[in-house]
Amino acid sequence: MVDVGAKEATDRRATAAAVVRMSAETARAVRGTRSGTGGDAPKGDVVGTARIAGIQAAKRTAELIPLCHPLPLSFVDVHIEVGETEVAIVAEARTTAQTGVEMEALTAAAVAALTVYDMVKGIERGVEIGDVRLLEKTGGKEDWRR
Amino acid sequence: MVDVGAKEATDRRATAAAVVRMSAETARAVRGTRSGTGGDAPKGDVVGTARIAGIQAAKRTAELIPLCHPLPLSFVDVHIEVGETEVAIVAEARTTAQTGVEMEALTAAAVAALTVYDMVKGIERGVEIGDVRLLEKTGGKEDWRR
Amino acid sequence: MVDVGAKEATDRRATAAAVVRMSAETARAVRGTRSGTGGDAPKGDVVGTARIAGIQAAKRTAELIPLCHPLPLSFVDVHIEVGETEVAIVAEARTTAQTGVEMEALTAAAVAALTVYDMVKGIERGVEIGDVRLLEKTGGKEDWRR
Amino acid sequence: MVDVGAKEATDRRATAAAVVRMSAETARAVRGTRSGTGGDAPKGDVVGTARIAGIQAAKRTAELIPLCHPLPLSFVDVHIEVGETEVAIVAEARTTAQTGVEMEALTAAAVAALTVYDMVKGIERGVEIGDVRLLEKTGGKEDWRR
Amino acid sequence: MVDVGAKEATDRRATAAAVVRMSAETARAVRGTRSGTGGDAPKGDVVGTARIAGIQAAKRTAELIPLCHPLPLSFVDVHIEVGETEVAIVAEARTTAQTGVEMEALTAAAVAALTVYDMVKGIERGVEIGDVRLLEKTGGKEDWRR
Amino acid sequence: MVDVGAKEATDRRATAAAVVRMSAETARAVRGTRSGTGGDAPKGDVVGTARIAGIQAAKRTAELIPLCHPLPLSFVDVHIEVGETEVAIVAEARTTAQTGVEMEALTAAAVAALTVYDMVKGIERGVEIGDVRLLEKTGGKEDWRR
Repeated sequence: MVDVGAKEATDRRATAAAVVRMSAETARAVRGTRSGTGGDAPKGDVVGTARIAGIQAAKRTAELIPLCHPLPLSFVDVHIEVGETEVAIVAEARTTAQTGVEMEALTAAAVAALTVYDMVKGIERGVEIGDVRLLEKTGGKEDWRR
Repeated sequence: MVDVGAKEATDRRATAAAVVRMSAETARAVRGTRSGTGGDAPKGDVVGTARIAGIQAAKRTAELIPLCHPLPLSFVDVHIEVGETEVAIVAEARTTAQTGVEMEALTAAAVAALTVYDMVKGIERGVEIGDVRLLEKTGGKEDWRR
Repeated sequence: MVDVGAKEATDRRATAAAVVRMSAETARAVRGTRSGTGGDAPKGDVVGTARIAGIQAAKRTAELIPLCHPLPLSFVDVHIEVGETEVAIVAEARTTAQTGVEMEALTAAAVAALTVYDMVKGIERGVEIGDVRLLEKTGGKEDWRR
Repeated sequence: MVDVGAKEATDRRATAAAVVRMSAETARAVRGTRSGTGGDAPKGDVVGTARIAGIQAAKRTAELIPLCHPLPLSFVDVHIEVGETEVAIVAEARTTAQTGVEMEALTAAAVAALTVYDMVKGIERGVEIGDVRLLEKTGGKEDWRR
Repeated sequence: MVDVGAKEATDRRATAAAVVRMSAETARAVRGTRSGTGGDAPKGDVVGTARIAGIQAAKRTAELIPLCHPLPLSFVDVHIEVGETEVAIVAEARTTAQTGVEMEALTAAAVAALTVYDMVKGIERGVEIGDVRLLEKTGGKEDWRR
Repeated sequence: MVDVGAKEATDRRATAAAVVRMSAETARAVRGTRSGTGGDAPKGDVVGTARIAGIQAAKRTAELIPLCHPLPLSFVDVHIEVGETEVAIVAEARTTAQTGVEMEALTAAAVAALTVYDMVKGIERGVEIGDVRLLEKTGGKEDWRR
C-alpha cells in the first residue's frame, strides 16, 4: 500500500461510468420495471436495485481492492439511464482525505452494472458490460478529465 | 430473490472474462512487475494481486449483488494474460447448487480488472475496462456458450 | 454454537415482521417517494431501499448474530406496506438446512425497519420501531405459528 | 447519500434503546446465564454475548443501512439490564464527524436485541422486540431528546 | 483454489489451539474480569469476549484466507483456560462438506488469542501469542493427530 | 470500547511479527512457488498470497476484534522472508488517529501466517505458528519497543 500519511487531507471527487449493452427488448423490460407499464424483468426494479448496490459497493472498496486505503466517504451516488439498447451508469464519490476516490467511483459503477446484468440475465444471458472508466477526478496533486 | 428451493442441486460452472485496455508502455510496466525485468508498476505484482482479489470477490458475490443467493463454491480461479496493450482476464467458478455461478465468475473478472486499474492508475489514469461478459455456463436448465 | 451436525437437512421457512410508527405526515412523505406525488423524503425511495437492505441483511445474519450458523438461503424477500401512521414490514426466508431461518427473517425485518428510520429521521426523529417478532416457522422439529 | 462534505466535523453522541419482552421464566433463565445460579439458557451467557454483538454491529452500520456514511467511531457501548419480564438494552455511540451516530446507536440496540432473541428462542419462541428508539442525540445542527 | 467438486461431502472436524503468554499479574487481571474478584482488565470480560470473537472469526475464514472454500459450519466453539502465566485457547469446528475445517479452527484460535491481547495490552504490551497449531482433524482422506 | 474521543489524533505506527515453523522440505517448496525453480506448493505463490491476505486483514481488524476502533489506515505492508525451516513475517501499520494500530499490525501478521499454513498444509499438516508479537509502536502516550 502506498503510504499517504504525509499527504494533506483535501477535498476529493471522482466520477466514473459503465455501460451495460443489451437488446432493445431487454432494455424495454428494464424500463418496464420502473413504470409498471410496458415491460417486465424477472427480479423487480432494476434501476433502483442497481443504484443501491453501487452505493453499498463504494463503501466496501477497500475490502475488495487489496491495496486501496479505507476512506471516510462524505458522498456517493449512482445515476442510471435506460437507453434504447443500453443502461448507462454514472457514479460519483467524494471525501476529504489524503488520497483520492477514483476506485470508489469505479467500484460503484462496476457493481451497479453487475447488478443490472444479474437482474436481466434470465431474459438475455449475452448482455455485456463495457466502458468502465474514470470520467473525472478533482483534488489531490492534479485534476484529471477524460 | 428468486426461490430456488424446488430446483435440484446440480454441478454448475461458469466462465467470464474482462479486458483492461492500456498503453503499450503501461502493459510493459505490468509485465515488469512479474519478472523484475523491463518494467515497474508503483504498487508491486499486478497479476498476482489481481488474481487474489478476483478469487476473494467471487466468494463475496452474494454480499455485493442484492438478489444473488449465497453459494458454497467448490472452485474459483482467475487467469490473467498481459498482452501488448491490454490485460485479459478469465475467471471460472464452480459449485454444486440449486442455482448457477454466472455472477460469481463475472464478479471475479470485474474485481480483478478493477484491481489492475488500481495498480496502474498512478502511471496511466485513462485505462479502461471493457468486455465484461459471460463466456459459458453449464449445469442447470440449459447450457449456454457465447 | 449448538451442534446441528446430527440433524437432518429439511425444508425450513420463517416469516417475521416489524412495524415503524410515525406521524401521518411522515407516512405521507414515505408514500410520496414511491409515486412521485404527494410527499417527499430526503433520501429517495424509502420502500425500495428498505426492501433491498432487508434482503442483504438476511444473507449476513451469521455475521451479526454470534451463535447463528451460516445457512445457504434459497429465498429471501421483504414486503413493505405504508399505512396511515406506520410502515409495516414482513420478511420471509427459506432454506434446506439442518437448522431454521428464524433469525434470518427477523434480521431482514429489523434492518429494513432501521433503513426506514434512516430515511425519514431528517423529518421526524422520534419515529419508533416495534413489534419485531416471529410470525411463523415451518420445518425442523416442529412448526410454530404466533 | 446526503452530501455531508461541507458540514463541520463536530463531537456527536447518540443513545438508543430496545426492549426484549419475554415470560418471567425466560427472563429468569437469562439471569441464570450470568450468575450460574437459578436459570439456564441453551446457548450460554446471554447478556455478555448480546453486548458484544451490539458493539460489533455498530461498527458495521454503514454496510447494513444503504445510505449511511462510514464513520470513525470513537466509542460504542451497550448496557443490558434483565428485568422481571424483559431485557432492556441501551446503546451509545460517539464520534467526531460531519454527520451523526443515531443509526450506529440504533443498530447496536437492535442487533443486541436480536441476539437476545437468538439465545432464548429455544425456550420461548414468541419473545418480541419493541421500543427500538432514539433516546437522545447531541452535536450537529441541533440536540434532540425524547 | 483447489477444486473440491469431485470429493464426497463427509463429516469433518478439526481442533486447533493457541497460547497467549503473559505475566502472572496480567493473568490474574484476566481471571478477575470473570469473577469480579481479585483483578481487573481495562476492557471487561476477557474470556467471554475472546470466545465470541473466535466463533465469529471461524465463520469468516473464507473471507480472510484467500484460497479457502466457504463452508456451511455445523458447529464452532472456543474454550479458554486462564493459567498462571498464560491463557490457553482450544477451538473446534465441524461441518459436513467436501473439504476440511482446519483453517476454521485455526482462525478461531488465532482471533481469540488476538482478542485476549487487545484486552490486556493496556496493562502489558509485551504479551505474546504462540503455539498456534492444529491438534487433530477427522474426516476426509485421512485423520491426523498431533 | 475505550472512549478515545478526548485524545488527540497523532501519527501512529506499529510493527508486529509472526513465525511459521516447518520442515526444510516444506520451506523449500514455499521458496519454489516464488521462483518457479526447485519446489512446489499445491496452491501457488505462497509469499505473494500471504502478503495480500495480511494487508486485507489489517483493514478488517475492527470487524474481527470486538473492542477495536475502526481506523483510517494510511499505510499497511507485510514483508515475508523464507528461511531454512521457517517463514518470518513482519507487518507494519500506520495511521493518524486517536488510538494506536498495534492490533492492525498483529492481525496482519497473524492472518498472513494462517495463509502460509493454508497453502502448505497439503504437504505438512503439523506446521506451527508462533512468536506473534508486537515489535514496536510509536505515537500516542508513549513509544514502546520490544
